[in-house]
Amino acid sequence: MRNNDTICAVSTPYGVGGIAVVRLSGPDAKRIAETFLKTSKGRAVTLADHKAKLCDFVHEGDLVDELVATYFATPHSYTGEDVVELSCHGSLYVQQALLQCLLDAGARLAEPGEFTLKAFLSGRLNLSQAEAVADLIDSRSRSAHDLAVSQFRGGYAQELETMRKELIDISALLELELDFSDEDLEFVNRDRLVHLVDTLSEKVQRLLDSFRLGNALKQGIPVAIIGRPNAGKSSLLNALLNDDRAIVSSIPGTTRDTIEETMTIDGMLFRFIDTAGLRESDDMLENIGFDRAIKSAKQAQVVLFVRAVDGDSDTIGEDIAFITSKCPMEDKHFFLVHSKCDLPHDMHEAGIYVSAKVGIGIEELKQAIVNAVKSDVDRQGDILLANSRHFEALAKVLSALSEVRKGLEVQLTQDLIAIDLRDALYHLGSITGSVSSDEVLSSVFSRFCIGK
Amino acid sequence: MRNNDTICAVSTPYGVGGIAVVRLSGPDAKRIAETFLKTSKGRAVTLADHKAKLCDFVHEGDLVDELVATYFATPHSYTGEDVVELSCHGSLYVQQALLQCLLDAGARLAEPGEFTLKAFLSGRLNLSQAEAVADLIDSRSRSAHDLAVSQFRGGYAQELETMRKELIDISALLELELDFSDEDLEFVNRDRLVHLVDTLSEKVQRLLDSFRLGNALKQGIPVAIIGRPNAGKSSLLNALLNDDRAIVSSIPGTTRDTIEETMTIDGMLFRFIDTAGLRESDDMLENIGFDRAIKSAKQAQVVLFVRAVDGDSDTIGEDIAFITSKCPMEDKHFFLVHSKCDLPHDMHEAGIYVSAKVGIGIEELKQAIVNAVKSDVDRQGDILLANSRHFEALAKVLSALSEVRKGLEVQLTQDLIAIDLRDALYHLGSITGSVSSDEVLSSVFSRFCIGK
Repeated sequence: MRNNDTICAVSTPYGVGGIAVVRLSGPDAKRIAETFLKTSKGRAVTLADHKAKLCDFVHEGDLVDELVATYFATPHSYTGEDVVELSCHGSLYVQQALLQCLLDAGARLAEPGEFTLKAFLSGRLNLSQAEAVADLIDSRSRSAHDLAVSQFRGGYAQELETMRKELIDISALLELELDFSDEDLEFVNRDRLVHLVDTLSEKVQRLLDSFRLGNALKQGIPVAIIGRPNAGKSSLLNALLNDDRAIVSSIPGTTRDTIEETMTIDGMLFRFIDTAGLRESDDMLENIGFDRAIKSAKQAQVVLFVRAVDGDSDTIGEDIAFITSKCPMEDKHFFLVHSKCDLPHDMHEAGIYVSAKVGIGIEELKQAIVNAVKSDVDRQGDILLANSRHFEALAKVLSALSEVRKGLEVQLTQDLIAIDLRDALYHLGSITGSVSSDEVLSSVFSRFCIGK
Repeated sequence: MRNNDTICAVSTPYGVGGIAVVRLSGPDAKRIAETFLKTSKGRAVTLADHKAKLCDFVHEGDLVDELVATYFATPHSYTGEDVVELSCHGSLYVQQALLQCLLDAGARLAEPGEFTLKAFLSGRLNLSQAEAVADLIDSRSRSAHDLAVSQFRGGYAQELETMRKELIDISALLELELDFSDEDLEFVNRDRLVHLVDTLSEKVQRLLDSFRLGNALKQGIPVAIIGRPNAGKSSLLNALLNDDRAIVSSIPGTTRDTIEETMTIDGMLFRFIDTAGLRESDDMLENIGFDRAIKSAKQAQVVLFVRAVDGDSDTIGEDIAFITSKCPMEDKHFFLVHSKCDLPHDMHEAGIYVSAKVGIGIEELKQAIVNAVKSDVDRQGDILLANSRHFEALAKVLSALSEVRKGLEVQLTQDLIAIDLRDALYHLGSITGSVSSDEVLSSVFSRFCIGK
């Protein structure tokens, strides 16, 4: 991508609407726009910074549209360059016709995310913030949105960047020691270095630990619904979704594939996963379903273990022992759900009593799930890692830092410690884009839609 | 609809995109928006007329989005009222969250077209212009777009309005004569009235005549492809569309239903209609196809009569006589198309020679069709009627004017002439909305999308 091009694109969602916005950014943005803009009396228009003007957009004497043009002069624009936004009538014809005029006048069609790339290249946003813009646009729930906003506002990237700079200073001194290695001088206080490495490692570890929750909040928190055949798992899914999603029958083993549906509760996106009934069977298909059910439970944040109240109450303990032997529950929220509680029963076990049929306990169950996840979020504090690129980079940072730490313990020479330190610095810097490769940039920005 | 409400809606197309625009209009628009807008330092924002400001949109201490707010102070806004446009990140969550905040703060969700209705009610647009906005948004081709722009710019409505005002003056004088009817005074020069009625009638007649073409340009110009069975009509349709739309086989009578596909050529939208082969048959289905083919030809603006070059050339004259007896061609463009011209033949008849198979003559045929329609447009001049509501109103105007004319000829009394004149005035006035009923308004504005 050439940084000096003037680019243009329709920035609003594809389709027909009341208005659409065509955006133009680059050194020629103002000149190109003004070529076409006229007052209603046919006079030339001069755009003024941050001013919205009602103009005619005229091409070869023909009125293409009456529109509002807003000019944002460099550097106080989204991209940091001159930007003109044309707010036009939202017909596909008008959108296309305006783009065509701008292209003919020398602009180039923007690549996906190129406006944000320009913002990054001009230093208006760091890479982590640019990624937050894409997350913001993709967000479907309040929690995903809040994560993106927090990252856009700086989030942990800021803090990491501060520590990176401190580390750079130390690293520079350490490399300086190398030049004087004959003289056995120590410019870097080893205790200070150890302290910094430990603090940073702890910070990074905390972030890495938070990824599972952060990612779940962004993509949807997995809630696995498991239990014996015919326990009423599919009925429970339908009741939770208030929908007829899963096929329900009294024939045990009706559900074979895992069925997944998303739902937003209290601003959080949940992925409810209905699974096949857990029983050892000769039916191969059922056994595959069994394996998948266990796998879903393992990946879940919340497990709903469903048991019908008319089942054999003596086996509850056995069942729970069985399931926890297959799938450890220590890092999950495990709920015992007694289903079909509209039937006569004399169960007095702990757990949540629900009836999908008459709608008892469904809201209570939802609230319990929400509260459990909220307690996780509260425990985690403000800082949640939700970006998988950052996760990978931070894992590399942690491993490099642990090498540094080991090296310091066994009193390795500066040059070897410096190598690990540089490695940690590189991966730290890749998060905010302080160091970045074309490959990373193109992978980050290809996620964007055109026009942003 | 209550005119004093402050309304809001997402004005950009539905979906996820780089940016979306939430629009707010009404007396409280500025106050409601400013409730939520803060500088990046958390200070209150005061919006200034026609200025775009980068702001934080904050709800109960939480950042909902960083967005650009533009304020258009009354009366220099689209609706004529105070308008605030919030250009936000185009996620569905952000769009919904912003709307929800505005609704909670006292705005109301806009009805379809309500922003434009406000523009009409505040006198910024007349009714014909408001309809042009809807047409502009719906337009899929340059010709439909140009028609909408011309109507938006005033078009014939302006001229009709001028004549209406002249007629109102005369009508007032005529009604004054009534008060002095005993004294046998004449305030209105009858010759002047006759002249005005004739001029107006002629004008209206010209507009009514142009409706067929205007409507065709807006909806797509119908081009019927007719001919004997197995003449290659479906192959020609596919070649024109450059697509495999119609099923092609060598079995005569393959096409039974009429098949319709649209295509834009040279900025004009065409509706190509492939029809069943024309032959008398015992097969009832085929006969229905035959009737439909004739009906399509009758409704078409352009008729392509397709004949294979390997057919019996002696029957050409007969065939044409047959088809013109069923469907008069005076008001249509009739093209004789000799198909399959890649086959050996010794045809030297006039007409266009095409081969769908090897692609001969297809572009030539398209150009001939385009030129024919362009000549119609040129002949019609600038003014084309394309709005069916206007067509109906003008037909009523013409009939009332002809009653006025008749009354003047037989020297009817003023009161009877005045009734017809008032009738003509009413229907004339309904075009620009100078007179309008709630019924008309709600039918006009229900065509709009929400947010415009």
